[in-house]
Amino acid sequence: MINLKPIKGYLDKIEIIDQRLLPIHKEYITLKTVEDLANAIKTLAVRGAPAIGIAASYGLCLGIKDSNREKIKNDFYNSYEILKNTRPTAVNLFTCLNRMKNKFEEIIEKYEINQIKEILFKEAIKIEEEDYIMCRKIGENGYKLIENLDNINAMTICNAGGLATSGFGTALGVFYMAKEKGKKIKVFVPETRPLLQGARLTTYELSEAQIDVVLLTDNMAGFLMKKEKIDIIVVGADRITKNGDTANKIGTYTLAILAKYHNIPFYVAAPSTTIDNSLPSGESIPIEFRGSDEIISFNGVTTAPDVPTFSPAFDITPANLITGIITEKGIFTYPYNF
Amino acid sequence: MINLKPIKGYLDKIEIIDQRLLPIHKEYITLKTVEDLANAIKTLAVRGAPAIGIAASYGLCLGIKDSNREKIKNDFYNSYEILKNTRPTAVNLFTCLNRMKNKFEEIIEKYEINQIKEILFKEAIKIEEEDYIMCRKIGENGYKLIENLDNINAMTICNAGGLATSGFGTALGVFYMAKEKGKKIKVFVPETRPLLQGARLTTYELSEAQIDVVLLTDNMAGFLMKKEKIDIIVVGADRITKNGDTANKIGTYTLAILAKYHNIPFYVAAPSTTIDNSLPSGESIPIEFRGSDEIISFNGVTTAPDVPTFSPAFDITPANLITGIITEKGIFTYPYNF
Repeated sequence: MINLKPIKGYLDKIEIIDQRLLPIHKEYITLKTVEDLANAIKTLAVRGAPAIGIAASYGLCLGIKDSNREKIKNDFYNSYEILKNTRPTAVNLFTCLNRMKNKFEEIIEKYEINQIKEILFKEAIKIEEEDYIMCRKIGENGYKLIENLDNINAMTICNAGGLATSGFGTALGVFYMAKEKGKKIKVFVPETRPLLQGARLTTYELSEAQIDVVLLTDNMAGFLMKKEKIDIIVVGADRITKNGDTANKIGTYTLAILAKYHNIPFYVAAPSTTIDNSLPSGESIPIEFRGSDEIISFNGVTTAPDVPTFSPAFDITPANLITGIITEKGIFTYPYNF
Repeated sequence: MINLKPIKGYLDKIEIIDQRLLPIHKEYITLKTVEDLANAIKTLAVRGAPAIGIAASYGLCLGIKDSNREKIKNDFYNSYEILKNTRPTAVNLFTCLNRMKNKFEEIIEKYEINQIKEILFKEAIKIEEEDYIMCRKIGENGYKLIENLDNINAMTICNAGGLATSGFGTALGVFYMAKEKGKKIKVFVPETRPLLQGARLTTYELSEAQIDVVLLTDNMAGFLMKKEKIDIIVVGADRITKNGDTANKIGTYTLAILAKYHNIPFYVAAPSTTIDNSLPSGESIPIEFRGSDEIISFNGVTTAPDVPTFSPAFDITPANLITGIITEKGIFTYPYNF
């Protein structure tokens, strides 16, 4: 049903769907250097915590594609640093980079230069493949929450879908699984300002997969919950701390409070690799603040005077507002003990 | 400090600031017929519950400007019907139209044609002047809530300011009064999708009045309340029912729930004429739903696939989420007994 491949990794290039152009154009762009990729990550041409991790894994291969034995360590660690500094909040980027670094350090003295490049490339492929398997498993686990319902009304925020992962999605993976199992499901999608990932990406990929969607602006979420029966809300995650606090797209915290007020089950769906056990609570997650231009203009059209802005890209939802966290290993519930 | 005159009524025309063009252009447009005005109201060139009421009052004068004794009744009631059917939610439109109609019916058989036109025009001027006086009084009453604070951090939604009234504002009137009294006040403004009245109008008029503003997208409101000390939230109203339930710009209900969760005082500011004692509760208020185009595009730029939308222009905040209702007569508190 869903058939998306947002990232295509090769030994000497990466092709990504340029998510800045969706839904108007579905277009792959080719990235030939680590700098190209870093720029693509910073400008959200590729975005979504798992997708960034996958792209960065291929990026490290790109960083050493022309290296000889003498230069390879320098090239690898340079690439590692460049990619590490693209975006601070999602943990998957760091997890993937470190997994690739561990592999690199394990093999660097043992193999010939071409073998090293090949082994690392295979590791990146493995990261991508594992993501796909985890996402389907998340979908299966999440599906259990709604399998007894008919005509499901669901809600999400931003895009935790195929485009944010290797192709199946986390939060949207639950809905794709319901569709595969023959359920009738309708998904209410807040547009997710400032960059409209809900409006541009989630409505796009759900519609492509023949799932009914209803689009709303972010400030309509509360009134929607009052007027319509919403059975479940499922969102993605950029980082989950040891106690279950969850960093995700700005607006998630607001949605969780509204869900609590309206007694709607509120779930986070993410691969277990999103859980960062090194951090005790959400207070320790670094939150990225983005430029004012995203708030005071849209697509080059000025929408406000040039005034100060508050512009976090993410927020923290405390564990006690989260009904459960759906991972490939199963569903955890509050109080969280992963 | 604030110096705005959004509506200028004359015997044969109305000039309004075209609020669709703000903040880029501050430009008066001239309306010469009732149809012009109806179109301006429907397309939000003039908006805000009190401002619509004032404009419609002048509109009835416009409707009879060329009438002779034979045609005047027909012209008046035609104009009345056209204006009545522009927007359904705000009560001020109907209150003003009915006040003008009562005046018309009181004088129609007693005076000459030119006297009738003049008396009605004076009634419209009186409606505008009374609005200004009420707004300043609302500002004074609301100011009492914050007079003991220093460095006030306030929040609002949409535009309940000078542009939405005869020039001083209701919710923003409270902030203008604080500024007049020498208080340091900063106002956090959610942009208020879909038509961005917060971003375009509220930041504009507060900045013009030298009040500090911080702009955010609507989905950042919850996280803002967690991260910053917000002392008070003040919003406007389009209609308040007998029990205190309040219709206001979509997103107000969400903001009220967030305020409750974060223990932030949440006030509605409106002239007492916004209270519609004929309706027992918010359930009876007709809510305007607007076109999908406002959600799936912005300034002519398509931002989403052509999917179904949920697009209420207003929502209802239940009385028990409202700390108090600030009117020119004083501050009412829950349970409301006006």
